[in-house]
Amino acid sequence: MDDKSLFLLAEDALQNAYAPYSDFLVGAALLTKSGEVYTGVNVENSSFGATICAERTAFVKAISEGHRDFETIAIASSGGKAWPCGICRQFMYEFGDELTVVTGPDKDHLEKHDIKELLLEGFRL
Amino acid sequence: MDDKSLFLLAEDALQNAYAPYSDFLVGAALLTKSGEVYTGVNVENSSFGATICAERTAFVKAISEGHRDFETIAIASSGGKAWPCGICRQFMYEFGDELTVVTGPDKDHLEKHDIKELLLEGFRL
Amino acid sequence: MDDKSLFLLAEDALQNAYAPYSDFLVGAALLTKSGEVYTGVNVENSSFGATICAERTAFVKAISEGHRDFETIAIASSGGKAWPCGICRQFMYEFGDELTVVTGPDKDHLEKHDIKELLLEGFRL
Amino acid sequence: MDDKSLFLLAEDALQNAYAPYSDFLVGAALLTKSGEVYTGVNVENSSFGATICAERTAFVKAISEGHRDFETIAIASSGGKAWPCGICRQFMYEFGDELTVVTGPDKDHLEKHDIKELLLEGFRL
Repeated sequence: MDDKSLFLLAEDALQNAYAPYSDFLVGAALLTKSGEVYTGVNVENSSFGATICAERTAFVKAISEGHRDFETIAIASSGGKAWPCGICRQFMYEFGDELTVVTGPDKDHLEKHDIKELLLEGFRL
Repeated sequence: MDDKSLFLLAEDALQNAYAPYSDFLVGAALLTKSGEVYTGVNVENSSFGATICAERTAFVKAISEGHRDFETIAIASSGGKAWPCGICRQFMYEFGDELTVVTGPDKDHLEKHDIKELLLEGFRL
Repeated sequence: MDDKSLFLLAEDALQNAYAPYSDFLVGAALLTKSGEVYTGVNVENSSFGATICAERTAFVKAISEGHRDFETIAIASSGGKAWPCGICRQFMYEFGDELTVVTGPDKDHLEKHDIKELLLEGFRL
Repeated sequence: MDDKSLFLLAEDALQNAYAPYSDFLVGAALLTKSGEVYTGVNVENSSFGATICAERTAFVKAISEGHRDFETIAIASSGGKAWPCGICRQFMYEFGDELTVVTGPDKDHLEKHDIKELLLEGFRL
């Protein structure tokens, strides 16, 4: 699946976001190495620290179905281009430093970075 | 779906847990009010703070598919009975104080509590 | 130190809260078994999940100075009575189930619960 | 204060770390723009997700005392060189993109990066 198609799935997913505290809706679409796609949204919480971002939602969905190898994640938001926060970068990095991260204000203006650029000198136990 | 059947789904799910740092595998099965079931596992991280428990995995899966109303969550672990941690209680409580939480060492010795007993004087913005 | 005095320290601390996203300012004052007091505030983050509450701030301050045994924590907020969120309960519970938690809208209307009431069936590895 | 001296304070702090689950002790020393130093340690939790790293401990200590402007953070660990995890990078980035991060296996082999290199395309609301 190409980046544009994956980004469109992220955009579609975003409508299910639960973001009553920021009104910042985010959707993510994660492509596994085996070709399957898992989507996610951000889920906020009254105690902000319990909030889970769209990227991590997509990851835990895929992981709980047995996946461990990932190719690309696309991220769309109600506020335009949205690079992942540091928590999500940490979460993704656990599963390899080859992941490509794609985002943009719309499907025709996508940008990309590898996770190892986004988390230089990444930490792993 | 009855509690035993839900617990068995949690037990089945547990095999996909990613828990290399604790070797404590957890599975959860969440029943929505509309009768659908979403399962989850714990996903640990080199930076422990980025770890997501099985219960939250099940919740974000259901929420990202549009669900907001939940009936029961069952939890099974490789270490026997496993009540949810405080983070997960906070996460669940956001979606109502009527949720029933079920766990046990096996399907024939289940115990249950309402989330409002497990998070007395619960915090919501 | 009595509960009223501890609560007043929590109220004083609150002015240093960093809460630009919720405008909900929280202060905490933690009394160690050896009689010392550590205060804390909530520190929010653009990525909500990285937010740290006032209670955890007070705890990590005390712990990083070598303390492990705690007596009472008092919590004050700009929005009145504020029981700790589930994340903070989990954090506190790690250091014993005897801690007393005190909060109220003001020093003359304090309420209290033990952490083991606030985190029934608490989880510890 | 120079980087070596700051790193030595981080090394000293590390002895108070609470890390029973990983046995990976971390200390941090944070220098404010006004020249004060706050130290921190990692504080682990039975529910791994509630763990707070040394860097965030140092930050919340300083913030709760009214500081908002930071110069340098040094990090020492029982396992050698330790760049901050993604959660901590996100936490630090909230307070400016000019912070210098210093770590090394010992005071004579220090390396440094700016936070904006460590969190390229950083996320801020």
